[in-house]
Amino acid sequence: MASKKTPVIAVVDTTFSTVNMGKIAVDELKKSYPKIRVIRHTVPGFKDLAVECQRLLKDGADIALALGMVGSAPIDTQCAHEASIGVQMAKMNTNKHIIEVFVHMKESEREDGSIDEQDLLSLTEDRVRKHAHNAVWLLISPEKLVERAGTGRRQGREDVGPAQPERRGAKNS
Amino acid sequence: MASKKTPVIAVVDTTFSTVNMGKIAVDELKKSYPKIRVIRHTVPGFKDLAVECQRLLKDGADIALALGMVGSAPIDTQCAHEASIGVQMAKMNTNKHIIEVFVHMKESEREDGSIDEQDLLSLTEDRVRKHAHNAVWLLISPEKLVERAGTGRRQGREDVGPAQPERRGAKNS
Amino acid sequence: MASKKTPVIAVVDTTFSTVNMGKIAVDELKKSYPKIRVIRHTVPGFKDLAVECQRLLKDGADIALALGMVGSAPIDTQCAHEASIGVQMAKMNTNKHIIEVFVHMKESEREDGSIDEQDLLSLTEDRVRKHAHNAVWLLISPEKLVERAGTGRRQGREDVGPAQPERRGAKNS
Amino acid sequence: MASKKTPVIAVVDTTFSTVNMGKIAVDELKKSYPKIRVIRHTVPGFKDLAVECQRLLKDGADIALALGMVGSAPIDTQCAHEASIGVQMAKMNTNKHIIEVFVHMKESEREDGSIDEQDLLSLTEDRVRKHAHNAVWLLISPEKLVERAGTGRRQGREDVGPAQPERRGAKNS
Amino acid sequence: MASKKTPVIAVVDTTFSTVNMGKIAVDELKKSYPKIRVIRHTVPGFKDLAVECQRLLKDGADIALALGMVGSAPIDTQCAHEASIGVQMAKMNTNKHIIEVFVHMKESEREDGSIDEQDLLSLTEDRVRKHAHNAVWLLISPEKLVERAGTGRRQGREDVGPAQPERRGAKNS
Repeated sequence: MASKKTPVIAVVDTTFSTVNMGKIAVDELKKSYPKIRVIRHTVPGFKDLAVECQRLLKDGADIALALGMVGSAPIDTQCAHEASIGVQMAKMNTNKHIIEVFVHMKESEREDGSIDEQDLLSLTEDRVRKHAHNAVWLLISPEKLVERAGTGRRQGREDVGPAQPERRGAKNS
Repeated sequence: MASKKTPVIAVVDTTFSTVNMGKIAVDELKKSYPKIRVIRHTVPGFKDLAVECQRLLKDGADIALALGMVGSAPIDTQCAHEASIGVQMAKMNTNKHIIEVFVHMKESEREDGSIDEQDLLSLTEDRVRKHAHNAVWLLISPEKLVERAGTGRRQGREDVGPAQPERRGAKNS
Repeated sequence: MASKKTPVIAVVDTTFSTVNMGKIAVDELKKSYPKIRVIRHTVPGFKDLAVECQRLLKDGADIALALGMVGSAPIDTQCAHEASIGVQMAKMNTNKHIIEVFVHMKESEREDGSIDEQDLLSLTEDRVRKHAHNAVWLLISPEKLVERAGTGRRQGREDVGPAQPERRGAKNS
Repeated sequence: MASKKTPVIAVVDTTFSTVNMGKIAVDELKKSYPKIRVIRHTVPGFKDLAVECQRLLKDGADIALALGMVGSAPIDTQCAHEASIGVQMAKMNTNKHIIEVFVHMKESEREDGSIDEQDLLSLTEDRVRKHAHNAVWLLISPEKLVERAGTGRRQGREDVGPAQPERRGAKNS
Repeated sequence: MASKKTPVIAVVDTTFSTVNMGKIAVDELKKSYPKIRVIRHTVPGFKDLAVECQRLLKDGADIALALGMVGSAPIDTQCAHEASIGVQMAKMNTNKHIIEVFVHMKESEREDGSIDEQDLLSLTEDRVRKHAHNAVWLLISPEKLVERAGTGRRQGREDVGPAQPERRGAKNS
């Protein structure tokens, strides 16, 4: 599926996020795939990601990373839902992939309701960097994804790995 | 509705799943319908299934199996909802069927909240294999589905069968 | 709005349902409107109804009945929601009516959580038969619907009738 | 934005509603704007409103009123959601306004869960009549809406009026 | 991305809102960007925003501000969700940005459930004014958004700023 022209990846992030997600994605892509062309744009919030990705994909980008951070109030979760539906629409309209990389602040919430910002940073960085590779694989090395099918990959946290029926109880060994 | 050209089924699964769902589907299709052509792709997560199916259906596949596994956190359920809406969009755009085969890890959750991985594996395998047949029937033997109309078919668990008013109390016999 | 060509109604039901909804619809249509042409298809589950209806409407059917039964788990309700959004999309794409006839098993749930299958059968039959008439009226006798506007019609249960301010207390008479 | 040809308003209501909403809308439009042409159709339930409006708007109507009543069970609220998404789709496809006039029976629910039908009638009538004017203003007098911007207009109940910071405590005067 | 023709911003607000959001947006745009052309329309409620924005964007506007206020009942939250999905559709159809500026009255709710109207006014004004700048930046100065990427910008309240792992505990200084 590799084409001769230079592949173009669009990276779109937000000013709402408390982590510079776009910078991390660009860094990972430049470092690992120096031949790929990267375009980076920023929009105000995650609801603006879908149409910006669509615009870039219609302008020639081959795939997009939609990078957003979601606040921890219930209304934020609903807004993320709307943003995600928009992202699905943009994929359908362009017939191209957009990898949605959303971090929910709740994922780094302590028991007292405060945000563990160190955890938020490392979670976000891990998720963005791993999905940067997923984007490239979708674009030029789809076989790398087939090799990893059903292996419980996670972005942001450690992989859970494939299901192991004997994991609990473990009387088989 | 059978056509003379070789029918093509697209099988798309994810690296997120802890079970290699694509492999199971391909195995069932190859074993039962050796003449059908099967294309298998893998994407990172279930939100990426819809557009990959659309791409393959637009490229000539006749039907697709979208194979995904959904985590057990509430946000995963919302994400599955977004993925499913994307799948509906892809069907509408291509005017072709995509059988959505989603396994929710919660279906195999024990009372203590842990996942029964043996159950998850057998549930997943059963659901994938049965839907592989549904896909072929939709494509080349739609009469097999009409024969089974209203018979309470289930994938992943046993069929519940048709409603039987006398099942409880059972004073009629 | 009646046309000279024979009107065509598509009836689509599922193998998931525990009641043969398609058979009931075909029976009602054949019995009451012998001149109308009926096409009947069956799909695996209710998420497959929308695209099957769209396919039949694009192939020349004038209206469709989408017949589905929804399980009683919370995830089933979410899935029905996705199926319904698909049905709305199919209507918009074809600019034709699809009457969504969904029965939720919860509607026949007893206090102990078991399903009253006798109630489920009669509820389903009533809903399907009444909506078969609605489909024909939309197609060839829209004036019959205007006559019934605002009269609290129900399918599956008895009509509630028009609002009657004096119904409670009833001091006016 | 006024055009020389006679403006056409489509009024679509349901047989499900317990109030004849279409009749109220037609009455208000005929009484207040005798020169406007009104088309009235009725569909079975509120999920059928969107495509009927789309059909009429594609056939030449300039704007539509989608009049529906929503039952008080939780599943009814979900169904109303699906109906509303359909209405949004129909607006987008036609690039015309559809004013969604939905009355939720819950709005007239007494503490004991019964419906206050007198309240339901007056609420419904007020909402329909006010939105009939909104439809005409959108069509031929948009300046009337700009004049009312941010003034807390309500349909069905009294206007709440513009925010007044001094309303509570009111120590400023 | 700046074009030689005068940029056109569409401002659409509602009569439902208790704050004249459109007036605030026009004021901010006129004051800060006197060369930009501003078109202002008003619709009845927030569900009418999406298609009005689409109409104006199809008529030549380059970007739109969709200004809405959401009531504090649960059903209002669902309605806002539908309105937002409509806004996503309108963006996709026009391939242009619509900045959705929604204020939820709940954001200014006191513990006793009453609305703090002073807070509502200042929250609304801050959100509208900041998003007026975001719209212009998206249109003619996208580099200003990239500079602010990941800096925790908020509209309506103070910015939260970028994540600072040492913020809590703060033993590093």
